Amino acid sequence: MSRPLILLFLIVTALMPGQTTCQDDDALMISRIHDESLGNGRSWKWLTGLCTRHGGRIAGSHAYLEATDYTAGLLAGIPGVRAYKQDCQADHWIRGDHEEVVIKKSKAGKLKLKALSLGNSVATPPGGVTAEVIEVKSLDEVEKLGREKISGKIVFYNRPMDPTKIRTFSAYGGAADQRVYGPAKAAEYGAVAALVRSMTTQADDFPHTGVTVYKDSLNKIPGIAISTNDADRLSNLLSQGPVHIYCRTNCRQEGKKPAPTVIGEIRGSEFPDEIILVGGHLDSWDVGQGAHDDGAGCIQSAEVLRILTTLGYKPKRTIRCVLFSNEENGLAGGKTYAAESNRKGEFHLAAIESDAGGFSPRGFGFDADTSVFKTYYRNVSKWLPLLESYGLQFETGGGGADIGPLKSQKGLLVGLRPDSQRYFDFHHTANDRIENVNRRELELGAAAMASLVFLIDKYGIK
Amino acid sequence: MSRPLILLFLIVTALMPGQTTCQDDDALMISRIHDESLGNGRSWKWLTGLCTRHGGRIAGSHAYLEATDYTAGLLAGIPGVRAYKQDCQADHWIRGDHEEVVIKKSKAGKLKLKALSLGNSVATPPGGVTAEVIEVKSLDEVEKLGREKISGKIVFYNRPMDPTKIRTFSAYGGAADQRVYGPAKAAEYGAVAALVRSMTTQADDFPHTGVTVYKDSLNKIPGIAISTNDADRLSNLLSQGPVHIYCRTNCRQEGKKPAPTVIGEIRGSEFPDEIILVGGHLDSWDVGQGAHDDGAGCIQSAEVLRILTTLGYKPKRTIRCVLFSNEENGLAGGKTYAAESNRKGEFHLAAIESDAGGFSPRGFGFDADTSVFKTYYRNVSKWLPLLESYGLQFETGGGGADIGPLKSQKGLLVGLRPDSQRYFDFHHTANDRIENVNRRELELGAAAMASLVFLIDKYGIK
Repeated sequence: MSRPLILLFLIVTALMPGQTTCQDDDALMISRIHDESLGNGRSWKWLTGLCTRHGGRIAGSHAYLEATDYTAGLLAGIPGVRAYKQDCQADHWIRGDHEEVVIKKSKAGKLKLKALSLGNSVATPPGGVTAEVIEVKSLDEVEKLGREKISGKIVFYNRPMDPTKIRTFSAYGGAADQRVYGPAKAAEYGAVAALVRSMTTQADDFPHTGVTVYKDSLNKIPGIAISTNDADRLSNLLSQGPVHIYCRTNCRQEGKKPAPTVIGEIRGSEFPDEIILVGGHLDSWDVGQGAHDDGAGCIQSAEVLRILTTLGYKPKRTIRCVLFSNEENGLAGGKTYAAESNRKGEFHLAAIESDAGGFSPRGFGFDADTSVFKTYYRNVSKWLPLLESYGLQFETGGGGADIGPLKSQKGLLVGLRPDSQRYFDFHHTANDRIENVNRRELELGAAAMASLVFLIDKYGIK
Repeated sequence: MSRPLILLFLIVTALMPGQTTCQDDDALMISRIHDESLGNGRSWKWLTGLCTRHGGRIAGSHAYLEATDYTAGLLAGIPGVRAYKQDCQADHWIRGDHEEVVIKKSKAGKLKLKALSLGNSVATPPGGVTAEVIEVKSLDEVEKLGREKISGKIVFYNRPMDPTKIRTFSAYGGAADQRVYGPAKAAEYGAVAALVRSMTTQADDFPHTGVTVYKDSLNKIPGIAISTNDADRLSNLLSQGPVHIYCRTNCRQEGKKPAPTVIGEIRGSEFPDEIILVGGHLDSWDVGQGAHDDGAGCIQSAEVLRILTTLGYKPKRTIRCVLFSNEENGLAGGKTYAAESNRKGEFHLAAIESDAGGFSPRGFGFDADTSVFKTYYRNVSKWLPLLESYGLQFETGGGGADIGPLKSQKGLLVGLRPDSQRYFDFHHTANDRIENVNRRELELGAAAMASLVFLIDKYGIK
């Protein structure tokens, strides 16, 4: 039956007292949620505001603090929502004021590579560093080459993301160790800097930043992302003979800064102590606008509250929109939130995270403590027929970085799963901007989340 | 089981003689098809060539003829493929050399609206036409207003596409009658021209062209698309009082021109008389590059042949890639192809069309003559478990405009179903360009089609 026919059927049966079932009511509510999001939604307007006024909002920055005011204001404007901020301190890393330079100088001329320091990286010395480049495909290769080959060099990690993975997050998972742990590994063997091929399957000119992690006991060296096109160019040059590179960066840690998490809450009428969290992370990298990562998830989460309220839905359980701080380079928001929640003895019946971009939603992934997972998953799976006509599927394995620390409360963790094909076109780049978000796709994601929140609230999952 | 684990399992079992099943072999083949498309695919390179060298290829134009050479060359370059052209004559409509003007003149100044003549429209008189605008929401409204209110006016059709439809093609289907039949209906009641709100749910500045159809017995009046932003602006002006508009267009029919359909064929080894067609339409509108509509479908269809050939697959049945002519403004290619096929007594066991954009594939829609549909659909449905892990679903109702005339051969008609959310951002506009296609999404569509062709070829559907 087509969707209009289903609706007609539901409306007709809804007009016949005693003839409706829960499933009919639920289908009608889910249809109304989608109509509201697509027909009268605020997602697009709100995300446009967040991106254009408060882009590049790395935790601890002025832009971040402004974004907390903006989003707290949006939440406070939804009738029945109590908006507040949760104190959080985050390490404030800044890229510095001067241009980041990665350049190959030779008698033949200069070749300038597009470069971005990795998040939390140290800078080069003020005068920069020049050294021979050695290309590797893995951290293991650095170990095998050993100190003799690595010492004094610039290590260039150049293993591409595997384009044949159907889901791009799998390809990312198979390559990101080079960025996260590569500079520390290179430092362990005496390298003076590390270049990392950007995390995308696209051939383009955008360097992708992202966090790198040092071992505290070791000397720290600069980690710098270069674009995939420049990585191919550099690799090609290396195949012709030795290459020396000059790098100069000026990033630094500024110490702990206030970076509050933003919260908006509707108190439940029957079971206020059962919390259904819906959220994303408000911080972004300093480049770009943080449109897909993760402005989209934050705005969708706020929109869930607005949609349910606008439709007159009175939740039985407490529905809490949480816009976490510092996901990108420390996870201070998620850790602080969980610690505070545990301290108060709270229970999150469910936590739904949207942090995979504002693309066409394709379903949800579910996770929970093994002692409860089977029961929860069996119960939520009963709702799948209500959501399939919206192109949504369920799968095991889910959650997200910010809600991960809540797992010990033994509630359900859920990740929204949007189509992943375009995510790494924009992820952690200057190109993660509002014009690369599609309004309808964003709105469908908000509607999918609101539908799941509605079902969890109405029926519970136990 | 994750996809890597499935693959490992399949490879291990494939190495154990006598331990494999057909399903295992098929899963492995489908995985190889996807690896080839995503890892070594030609779709992106080929589509880039088609778009950048032979954009705006309306049937009968020089650009169209060049595109037939380009694509026939691509097909001929695939080992084992016989490439040829099928003669076809199409009405060649041209927009004309002068700027198309829709302008509101008043003492307060000029307001210029972004305008595009509808395809197959007549032009205004050379000096243009000025008249009062009357806004309507439907063809019925024109009838109700009658000759008294309509005569001498410019009718402005302004019913938006319904944004709450989950699938944008449903919303298009609910609004496109204004463009297709609106000018003829307005002419019937004495209007001097018709403006049509563009077919998109986006608020933007791109007018969307598309075919309009006249009744031969009636006077023909110009039909002109205006952007949704301009439609809103004009409607707002009309709410304040009468508005007069000046329009001038210079489009015209140039008569029948050669516009061949391009074909590439691999002859089947066992059942050469059972044809599996895979295709799209090579013509596009004159504005833009015809990237999504339907360069993507053409290139994906050619890529199906290349992928299967590259993997060493020898089809039992004849696999024929058909790039139809004149889908946009006459369907001469599809009609000529079916007539010729019927004349030769051919049988198309299946025909798969990709004409819904090069977006992330979400499945296939199936159709056939009622006498055979149930059997076919039951048989193909057995393959769904092989395709679900690629995000593909099956549904009833499918096919497409070009393969529609083949239905009388009582084979299976199939439409590739990509995600539809972004299609009408680009459809029939100057913005339908290669930079708005995502490489991976395009490649996944080609792989989905190749997988289905493989299964139909291997097992049949009867």
